Amino acid sequence: QSANEFRSQKDSLTQQLQDSESRNQVLEAQLSDLEQRLESIQLEREAFHKSLRSLLELLDSKLFELNELRDTLAKLIEGS
Amino acid sequence: QSANEFRSQKDSLTQQLQDSESRNQVLEAQLSDLEQRLESIQLEREAFHKSLRSLLELLDSKLFELNELRDTLAKLIEGS
Amino acid sequence: QSANEFRSQKDSLTQQLQDSESRNQVLEAQLSDLEQRLESIQLEREAFHKSLRSLLELLDSKLFELNELRDTLAKLIEGS
Amino acid sequence: QSANEFRSQKDSLTQQLQDSESRNQVLEAQLSDLEQRLESIQLEREAFHKSLRSLLELLDSKLFELNELRDTLAKLIEGS
Repeated sequence: QSANEFRSQKDSLTQQLQDSESRNQVLEAQLSDLEQRLESIQLEREAFHKSLRSLLELLDSKLFELNELRDTLAKLIEGS
Repeated sequence: QSANEFRSQKDSLTQQLQDSESRNQVLEAQLSDLEQRLESIQLEREAFHKSLRSLLELLDSKLFELNELRDTLAKLIEGS
Repeated sequence: QSANEFRSQKDSLTQQLQDSESRNQVLEAQLSDLEQRLESIQLEREAFHKSLRSLLELLDSKLFELNELRDTLAKLIEGS
Repeated sequence: QSANEFRSQKDSLTQQLQDSESRNQVLEAQLSDLEQRLESIQLEREAFHKSLRSLLELLDSKLFELNELRDTLAKLIEGS
C-alpha cells in the first residue's frame, strides 16, 4: 500500500473512532439520566408506601374503635 | 512517516475503535435493560394505582352505607 | 236505740258505701288505663329493641366489609 | 220496720262497706305499684336513650375520622 492509502485509512478510522466515542458519551448521559429517574421513582415509591402504611395503621385504629362502639351498642341492647 | 509507522497507527486505531464499539454495545444493552425495568415499574405502578382507586371507591360506598346506618340510628333515637 | 237512730245510721252507711264504690270505679279505671299504657310502652320498647338489633347486624356486616377492605389494602401495600 | 230488721240491715251495710274499703286498699296498692314500675321504666328509658345519644355522637366522630382518612387516601393516589 502506498503512504496515501494508509493516510486515507487512518483518517477514516480516526473519524469512526470519534463517532463511536461521541455515541458513547450520548449513551452514558442517557444511562445516567435513566438511573437518576429510576432512583427518583424508587424514592417516591418508598415515600408513597410509607404514607400508605401510616394510613393502614390509622384505618386499623379506627376499625378497632368502631368495633368497641359496636360492642357498647350490643351491651346496651342486651342490658335494657 | 514510514509505512511501518502508518501501519502501527492504523492497528492502534482499529483496536481503539473495536474497544469503543464494544463499550457501545455494553452501554446499549444496559440502556435497553433499564428502559425495560422502568417500563415494567410504570406498569406495576399503574396497576397498583388502579387497585387503590377501586379500593377508594369501595371505601366510599362503605362510608355511604355507614352514614345511612348512622341516620337510621338517629331517627330511631329521636322517634322513640 | 230508737228506730230513728237506726234509720239515721243506715242512711249514713248507705252513703259511705256509695262513696266507697264510686272511689272503687275511679281506681279501677285508673288501673286499667295504667295497664294499657304499660303494655303499650312494652310493645314500643320491643319494637325499638328489634330495630336496634337489626341495626347492630347491619353494623356488623359493614364492619366485616371494612375489615375485608383493610386486608385488601394491606395485601396491596405488601405486594407492591 | 222493727228494730231487728234495722239492725240486720245495718250489719249488712257495715259488712259491704268493709269489703268495699278493703277492695279500695288493694286497688290503691296495685295503682301505686304500677305507677312506680312506670316511673322506673321511664327512667331506664331515658338512661338508655342518653347512652344511645352518646354512642351516636361517638359514631359521628368515628365517621368524621374515617372520611378524613378517605380524603388522605384520595390525595395520596392523586398526587403520586
